[in-house]
Amino acid sequence: MPIVTLTTDFGSTDPFFGIMKGVILTICPEAKIEDITHDISPQDIWQANFILQASYHYFPKRTIHVCVVDPGVGSKRRPILIESKDYFFIGPDNGIFTGILEMEKIINIIALTEKKYWLQNVSQTFHGRDIFSPVAAHIAKMILETQQCCVSTFGKTINTNDLVRLPVSKPIKKENGYSGAIQFIDHFGNLITNIPNKEVPENITGKVKTFNFNGLVSSFAEANDNKLTAIKGSSGFVEIFVKNGNAEKITGVQIKDNVDLNFSS
Amino acid sequence: MPIVTLTTDFGSTDPFFGIMKGVILTICPEAKIEDITHDISPQDIWQANFILQASYHYFPKRTIHVCVVDPGVGSKRRPILIESKDYFFIGPDNGIFTGILEMEKIINIIALTEKKYWLQNVSQTFHGRDIFSPVAAHIAKMILETQQCCVSTFGKTINTNDLVRLPVSKPIKKENGYSGAIQFIDHFGNLITNIPNKEVPENITGKVKTFNFNGLVSSFAEANDNKLTAIKGSSGFVEIFVKNGNAEKITGVQIKDNVDLNFSS
Amino acid sequence: MPIVTLTTDFGSTDPFFGIMKGVILTICPEAKIEDITHDISPQDIWQANFILQASYHYFPKRTIHVCVVDPGVGSKRRPILIESKDYFFIGPDNGIFTGILEMEKIINIIALTEKKYWLQNVSQTFHGRDIFSPVAAHIAKMILETQQCCVSTFGKTINTNDLVRLPVSKPIKKENGYSGAIQFIDHFGNLITNIPNKEVPENITGKVKTFNFNGLVSSFAEANDNKLTAIKGSSGFVEIFVKNGNAEKITGVQIKDNVDLNFSS
Repeated sequence: MPIVTLTTDFGSTDPFFGIMKGVILTICPEAKIEDITHDISPQDIWQANFILQASYHYFPKRTIHVCVVDPGVGSKRRPILIESKDYFFIGPDNGIFTGILEMEKIINIIALTEKKYWLQNVSQTFHGRDIFSPVAAHIAKMILETQQCCVSTFGKTINTNDLVRLPVSKPIKKENGYSGAIQFIDHFGNLITNIPNKEVPENITGKVKTFNFNGLVSSFAEANDNKLTAIKGSSGFVEIFVKNGNAEKITGVQIKDNVDLNFSS
Repeated sequence: MPIVTLTTDFGSTDPFFGIMKGVILTICPEAKIEDITHDISPQDIWQANFILQASYHYFPKRTIHVCVVDPGVGSKRRPILIESKDYFFIGPDNGIFTGILEMEKIINIIALTEKKYWLQNVSQTFHGRDIFSPVAAHIAKMILETQQCCVSTFGKTINTNDLVRLPVSKPIKKENGYSGAIQFIDHFGNLITNIPNKEVPENITGKVKTFNFNGLVSSFAEANDNKLTAIKGSSGFVEIFVKNGNAEKITGVQIKDNVDLNFSS
Repeated sequence: MPIVTLTTDFGSTDPFFGIMKGVILTICPEAKIEDITHDISPQDIWQANFILQASYHYFPKRTIHVCVVDPGVGSKRRPILIESKDYFFIGPDNGIFTGILEMEKIINIIALTEKKYWLQNVSQTFHGRDIFSPVAAHIAKMILETQQCCVSTFGKTINTNDLVRLPVSKPIKKENGYSGAIQFIDHFGNLITNIPNKEVPENITGKVKTFNFNGLVSSFAEANDNKLTAIKGSSGFVEIFVKNGNAEKITGVQIKDNVDLNFSS
């Protein structure tokens, strides 16, 4: 059964994501629809980019990932379909797929123009319903019926270099450490840096804003209560946390704040 | 596979909607259960009515829509089943189906009385679990096994005119415009009026509370930043929004506040 | 189709529960994954225990219940699998299964040690993804393929008495009533005591904190507005509520606060 995931900023109080599910199931009743999240901060394409790159590769091959964080809906920004070696991605061309383009082997990128795969009346404010969901459902249906999907059916190929990309900052290697930034803060208040776990030795000290921390510990439980501590995080990046506390609330750190790591000798 | 949707005010911190899914799957393991929302404001039958009428028709024909916003649970209000030409609706008779009764061709309406389709011990506080979910699951099972469902199995037919209806206000046509009201405010703070898109020309001015706005723009992106602006909304009604802002927070407008539209010449 | 439920404290803003679904579907694409809740208060094992025991038994037999509320992740606390007569339970051995152990006929308990059923690289911070989800998916797959599951495949049997249990307080029978505590507060602000419905006669008076209440009414609607009132709740315990109001907000009562019931003559 083809799997379609949804990642949006629609929240859960409106009927928007339910409507998308209805549209998909009307075209492909066999599709299995799974939520990644609908609680991206409104119009936050940076957060969408992080969430997508942290989660898409845990799904089975050929999963169809739909992401609708779309402040430019109805403007000239293009609706696109990315076919990579293992997945399909559908959404607006506004930078939300920046990480995907870096991580995946890209096969084809299509500007969605073929209107016969859209809903009949396309609004200017809800392409998640009118364009992205029906295209996802038609891909699901093609895979189900023919074991394959020729993406060029849906529009015309565009060049990878023409896509919008977010100016994501990379951590800077220093003589004996890294200078990076906070790229995400999770529900527990843990501060996720952009410094990869694999670049970091076992003993470090560091500073985020004016707050010092030590690490690495090998589990949350190993840290001291109420002390800012670093650990190799599950998303592949160094995280800063407070055991039995909320590092975000305690420090006031925000996304894009600087973080410095010094490798201890 | 039969589809059952759930719309409730149960929130997501309690196990209530999970329990409903368990009950449905115990009776009909093949059912596909999709959430519309569980974040209706507690006991807000007006909001339930809007959400239902905005979403139900995007689902495949024969979808079974269950709605549990039920302040009168355990009192004399009736549990009902509505069979329309294309769908089934299950929930309390308290007005949440007002829009459905207007939009759908009604085939039959049943007061749920046949207890053999309920859970064995019916509580006085959770008919979503004890009556509505099992009835939905039995309908799903009948459709799956026999391709049809005779709704009169579940109770006795009642007259459409006997149903509770909300006194929904209609917009009033004026000489050169409309006088209406805000009927819903979405997660982005967009104010959704009760004035249908199709009644409105391209150029309008308007006022909501003491705030003036212009329109119609053809996309969110086309508006000026921080200016209250009108657009034809995706739910079929004129919406008032602030580009890159939150119209609800900026204006303090609430549901049922008046809105006036003047057609520009 | 095998059913897997998820109960976590991951919230809905992070990709964590979506990632778990991806991991499960990669191993067992046929699994049907249903959310119970992801909004347990961070690291609140008491709440997890209540939610689980209130919901698990409404699901079909052989459902695989995964619960990840896991403050000790990466420490010495054991990852476990409980096979009861009718269900499977997977999660950390930290007390979240206290109620399950009391309610279910236990067949076998396994400490998860067999790494070939885990993801290849196990983090120290996200066993929900790396251990619990893959084990759940392998059980689902075994049931699907062979109609059975030999749980000892996943590790070594441990003794029931070795499991961590929460010191859950039981209500105390008094000469003419009960002394108990609030064990859960739901989304509507209803205060759920630990005093079983079946121990309580029709007429009672009671006190929670400094607030008096009467009961039992037989439905919410039957109570007087704005008066604290008791009712036999749907989860099997006496609940205290305010009709058209929020008892939690009005009283400031918290979980573990005392409640006294006096049986009226």
